[in-house]
Amino acid sequence: MNMIYFNGEYVEDQITISPDDRGYQFGDGIYEVIRVYNGKLFTAKEHFERLLRSAEEIKIELKLTVADYIAICERLVKENQVETGNIYVQVTRGNAVRNHIFPESSEPVTFIYSYGSERPVQGMREGIKVITADDIRWLRCDIKSLNLLGNVLNKQKAHEAGAAEAIQIRDGIVTEGASSNAYIVKDGAIYTHPTDNLILNGITRQVIKQCAEENHIPFVEKTFGMDELLAADEVLMSSVSIEVTPVIQIDDRTFNVGPVTRQLQAAFEEKISSL
Amino acid sequence: MNMIYFNGEYVEDQITISPDDRGYQFGDGIYEVIRVYNGKLFTAKEHFERLLRSAEEIKIELKLTVADYIAICERLVKENQVETGNIYVQVTRGNAVRNHIFPESSEPVTFIYSYGSERPVQGMREGIKVITADDIRWLRCDIKSLNLLGNVLNKQKAHEAGAAEAIQIRDGIVTEGASSNAYIVKDGAIYTHPTDNLILNGITRQVIKQCAEENHIPFVEKTFGMDELLAADEVLMSSVSIEVTPVIQIDDRTFNVGPVTRQLQAAFEEKISSL
Repeated sequence: MNMIYFNGEYVEDQITISPDDRGYQFGDGIYEVIRVYNGKLFTAKEHFERLLRSAEEIKIELKLTVADYIAICERLVKENQVETGNIYVQVTRGNAVRNHIFPESSEPVTFIYSYGSERPVQGMREGIKVITADDIRWLRCDIKSLNLLGNVLNKQKAHEAGAAEAIQIRDGIVTEGASSNAYIVKDGAIYTHPTDNLILNGITRQVIKQCAEENHIPFVEKTFGMDELLAADEVLMSSVSIEVTPVIQIDDRTFNVGPVTRQLQAAFEEKISSL
Repeated sequence: MNMIYFNGEYVEDQITISPDDRGYQFGDGIYEVIRVYNGKLFTAKEHFERLLRSAEEIKIELKLTVADYIAICERLVKENQVETGNIYVQVTRGNAVRNHIFPESSEPVTFIYSYGSERPVQGMREGIKVITADDIRWLRCDIKSLNLLGNVLNKQKAHEAGAAEAIQIRDGIVTEGASSNAYIVKDGAIYTHPTDNLILNGITRQVIKQCAEENHIPFVEKTFGMDELLAADEVLMSSVSIEVTPVIQIDDRTFNVGPVTRQLQAAFEEKISSL
């Protein structure tokens, strides 16, 4: 049995949650997924800084610091002997009698677990098929919250269409994937949605931005529509799980894997190697 | 200890949930709240028909029929001796290893409990203060899902402003309250947002519509904006919990409780009496 962190304790047994957990009745909580490469955490500080920001935005008072969270993750990685895998971290506002209004006092419920997960080598090498779908999510997608039903429905829609991901479109503008960020390459420059309330500021996106800058590839944070998406030289998506993955088909339109995507993949690989 | 229905069984002990419940990690579930007056269920059939619709929209396969759900509720009301109270019903897609895509097979997790809750006599008599707030929710508010963080944040905002509810505004249009429907009265007619993807088709709203028709009060399902809201003769809100409640203040603007609201309250009271 894997070791799990649950509310201040390291436990080996299966944990249970109260049905009064506000995470369960309202999706009133936040989460992060952190990658482990070669037994080491990747961009953990950035993930936990974002967790703290998400908590602040919905006024959950976290008891732990970024350093505390990293120490917990390091212990789980070690004890559970994770070489290539993920850490899942979830914090909810805690247990209370059902009421939309925040409880006067409630202890956040935190659980953190690790699991092995191989790198998505096939997708990265060959590319993935995606569909386009209406972005029906709420207007605070910058908060990494547990309100994920919009994402779930579009991901399922993609799955049923034999695709790996859905590129979401709101009011004619490409926002992001159901669980990833989306980019196009045109004339050697990368374009992606600016980090506002309509997308999550992906940690992998931040690494890609850094890779682009280090490789003198223009990284333009500017909205674009369906026309520009379909007229792109290259299309790619990124997340903790899919890293830098080329898109080879959007609905019925096919794309080639291009040189900018390959350059970014190589630069990303170096970031992993230098861990 | 109250009797609770949990996954096919009636239990008296505190139940627990798996952290792998998709309700917990994605808000991947639906719910209903049903009123009990004088030990009898009010509009239970309508609530469970809506539950079935919500389930269908997000493709959760329910095992129970409307009649099954009603029988469970009746047993809980009887065993727990609920005179005036609520029944809370929640169904999630069930437990599965975390993945946005629906699991190949998962058993829905259902829990149903009852609790005493007095009628909101003061609010109904004197009226409530409300604020206006941006409607930041997703675009499928017609589904009564567990993705309630947008509602929670606006309800909390109202609470911190000393108000009882938030009237939500999307693109200049009044949609509904954070946990209620919103109406204005102008020149003797009631206006409220049409039942589309932007509001929940409230069961109390349906009863009010019927009361209006029976009392020859025009009931107009048509969008209106802030200007019309603030220029209204009467403003009222409704839900299972607040029934027909007049609004006496919106932000800084005050309103009187008017005759149409009182007429609807009397008609609603008759529906309860005739149970």
